[in-house]
Amino acid sequence: MTPSKQPEIPADGDSPNVARADLSTPAVGRLSLYYRELHRLLDAGQMSTNSRDLAAMVNVSAAVVRRDLSSIGSVGRRGVGYDVASLAHHIGVVLGSGVNWKAVMIGVGYLGNALLRYRGFERLGFSLAAAFDTDPSKINRVVGNTRILAMDQLDPVLRELKPELAILAVPSEEAMDVASRVVALGIQGILNFAPTTLRVSSSVAVINVDLASELQQLAFRIQNG
Amino acid sequence: MTPSKQPEIPADGDSPNVARADLSTPAVGRLSLYYRELHRLLDAGQMSTNSRDLAAMVNVSAAVVRRDLSSIGSVGRRGVGYDVASLAHHIGVVLGSGVNWKAVMIGVGYLGNALLRYRGFERLGFSLAAAFDTDPSKINRVVGNTRILAMDQLDPVLRELKPELAILAVPSEEAMDVASRVVALGIQGILNFAPTTLRVSSSVAVINVDLASELQQLAFRIQNG
Repeated sequence: MTPSKQPEIPADGDSPNVARADLSTPAVGRLSLYYRELHRLLDAGQMSTNSRDLAAMVNVSAAVVRRDLSSIGSVGRRGVGYDVASLAHHIGVVLGSGVNWKAVMIGVGYLGNALLRYRGFERLGFSLAAAFDTDPSKINRVVGNTRILAMDQLDPVLRELKPELAILAVPSEEAMDVASRVVALGIQGILNFAPTTLRVSSSVAVINVDLASELQQLAFRIQNG
Repeated sequence: MTPSKQPEIPADGDSPNVARADLSTPAVGRLSLYYRELHRLLDAGQMSTNSRDLAAMVNVSAAVVRRDLSSIGSVGRRGVGYDVASLAHHIGVVLGSGVNWKAVMIGVGYLGNALLRYRGFERLGFSLAAAFDTDPSKINRVVGNTRILAMDQLDPVLRELKPELAILAVPSEEAMDVASRVVALGIQGILNFAPTTLRVSSSVAVINVDLASELQQLAFRIQNG
């Protein structure tokens, strides 16, 4: 898929009619990076930016930045560029940030622990509503801002909280069972850190983060650089 | 880039002449997943497999599996399929596993701590030779199998160990400085967990893992599912 061409739309308007499902996965990834950098500029008090500076911040060409932004209906003004706050807001709307997604964490080993303490999720509008672990010594502890509950509370708690997302940081051999349970409880998207492929209904979105595989791809690039 | 077509080559042979740099990034990612699943089969004592079963394990079509494997010179035999051990070995050679890459970890906060304890890296032939942190209370502690050293030992230790890879789990605002230092000390590839874009020489391979961005992409997929 390629981003669809959009007619010229004022830079600052939200344009809810933009065909967002048309965005390719790499384009969504880049929008997420622009969003991150725009928020860094906002924090630093910078009011406007341009495609060349944004391009430098995320290591792509200015033409790619302009194409990505125009595909969601944001067109910079010549000599002025983009208003940082409006553009950040607009990309946030497209990406679904600010919707205040609810996520639950399953598995609070060392990685789950690090993820619960990571503030980047909240900054993007995600709330970590609850965490679950099988280890009795962890139950009721609060990590980050999230309380750890026993796995046998999974069903009632998910029925009550109705989270959309689950983050799986469980051992590989448990991941498939856990995934089936949370999907049956209405979870629509899974961020999976277990190094195994989850087979779930195609209506459930799954993103896998396999840390060893990332390192292997890095080694491949070096070997073939 | 698309994988190059290869002439028919015996399934079990290593074929060092295969143009490996031709592999697309997604193809390398899939090879890494086949490799992971083949090792799981090996551990379970399974001797042979076929493209259909491999496809089910990693959620792609059997045709994609056959194309990926034939692009690295591995062709399954009709009615027999692939020998698990040979295929795993062959993919390992292509991906550079078993080369025994040396990596260092920079930053041992909660995430760095989880990564040092993660055994998946060693299983793929990576050794975590040393870790570095600025916190004096952490110095000389051993996490996983890796000793934490002071940041001011970075230069002499990297000159001696000559690692190829650095894993960065430092705060965003320190990431660029740290990246410049390790590149100057000969690091060829960086796995970057800091949510910021690193600007380094194009001869250095960088793979970014931005956890919040992954969750944002998941939310986008659900919203536009």
